Amino acid sequence: MCELLGMSANTPTDLCFSFTGLTQRGGNTGPHSDGWGVAFFEGKGIRSFHDSAASSASKIANLVQTLPIKSQTAICHIRQANVGNICLANTHPFVRELWGKNWVFAHNGQIENFSGLKTIFEPIGDTDSEAIFCDVMNHIRTTLTRDANLEQFTALLTQLANQYASKGVFNCLLSNGDWLFTFCSTKLASITRRAPFGDAQLKDADVTVDFAGETTPNDVVSIIATEPLTTDEDWKIYEKGEWKLWQLGEVIKHGKVDL
Amino acid sequence: MCELLGMSANTPTDLCFSFTGLTQRGGNTGPHSDGWGVAFFEGKGIRSFHDSAASSASKIANLVQTLPIKSQTAICHIRQANVGNICLANTHPFVRELWGKNWVFAHNGQIENFSGLKTIFEPIGDTDSEAIFCDVMNHIRTTLTRDANLEQFTALLTQLANQYASKGVFNCLLSNGDWLFTFCSTKLASITRRAPFGDAQLKDADVTVDFAGETTPNDVVSIIATEPLTTDEDWKIYEKGEWKLWQLGEVIKHGKVDL
Repeated sequence: MCELLGMSANTPTDLCFSFTGLTQRGGNTGPHSDGWGVAFFEGKGIRSFHDSAASSASKIANLVQTLPIKSQTAICHIRQANVGNICLANTHPFVRELWGKNWVFAHNGQIENFSGLKTIFEPIGDTDSEAIFCDVMNHIRTTLTRDANLEQFTALLTQLANQYASKGVFNCLLSNGDWLFTFCSTKLASITRRAPFGDAQLKDADVTVDFAGETTPNDVVSIIATEPLTTDEDWKIYEKGEWKLWQLGEVIKHGKVDL
Repeated sequence: MCELLGMSANTPTDLCFSFTGLTQRGGNTGPHSDGWGVAFFEGKGIRSFHDSAASSASKIANLVQTLPIKSQTAICHIRQANVGNICLANTHPFVRELWGKNWVFAHNGQIENFSGLKTIFEPIGDTDSEAIFCDVMNHIRTTLTRDANLEQFTALLTQLANQYASKGVFNCLLSNGDWLFTFCSTKLASITRRAPFGDAQLKDADVTVDFAGETTPNDVVSIIATEPLTTDEDWKIYEKGEWKLWQLGEVIKHGKVDL
């Protein structure tokens, strides 16, 4: 399996602290040593890094841990391969352009023998995850229009997520830079940090941060992860079938499908 | 304007030496300080880095200079903005997926008020370069099929390049990982290194390399750049309108259009 990490914030925020915790699980405190990747939205552009090496030993991951890349939406993934070889083409997050926007996707889980639409978007590698992503993108392109509203997006995304989750394990993060859609089929957690900010201690590394020193009183920063990344904060655990749509650090829509 | 750098090799080869030379021109020995980017093909995947900071001062560029990322095809670009703001979305090389492959493009030049096909692929940023790339990709998708041969690809690409060059300056590098198409409207140069390998001295930094110590006798490595990167090698200068299709370090097709 794999681990997911997402961020939604109302002000450009770096992911260094959470990323440092997550990447320890890629070969050090966890077994997810078959590559890692991260994409930071920066305006309409994205800054992405992918490596097929274990994140705990990756020089690129080491740079990303220390480089305060500021973003309002970011998606990160560390991989423990089940379907597909260990190679760069199989490394999440996956990216496609649609309607002049970058769309970024990462998946935790497995759907055996997945076969989806291949009308426009096609997988480059051979993971079930990328095939699912292409299926999502093809459905968005054929079902919706570029000016679809959030009701229409979430109706389609939850319907698809429900179908995927009925065939296997499907926890996902999907963003087009405007919002971050999150779906939990088995495991996902979130925390929203806002004033008054306090300290936090990583579970996977001997690192503590004092968020009060790094933020302003108006900042709202939410982290979504497969498992809580800190030991001394009150993470919310998603229920099975629960989905949340994040924007500017807040949940703007949410719901639950029956699995 | 901008500067281009491409590599085609018959064995996975790092780009550290040439990249070190080129990135000096991004704010140090040259004025191209409005961002830089590079994409390395690795199997069907790509490892890409983009930064809107000047390459000569970029921590990410510094890492790429020292990390021996091995690739058979790579495309790099340093930018001096003319059309479009300085931001990540406007930073070459641009990437799109078609027929389950990554397609990577970088452009040197300018075409004013460019407007092309927007049937499937659309620009994310606001450069003429990305709009041209999307036009190329839309033409490939609508005119050719996934099993088109090299004759068909080069016929379409040279026809498009001729049209673009008639409207402005159009030097470009385009690759789908199988081959590297290069077109010169005003300025492009290449060098092919093969046994017996010798030394080379960068023009833009006090760096010398002994390629004999880094290669095997069968290696063939070609570098394509806007201007020669070394002072003591015999670079071939493209003529205006000349195009070359590179594969495994060799020119496998070439020709010239009347500009």
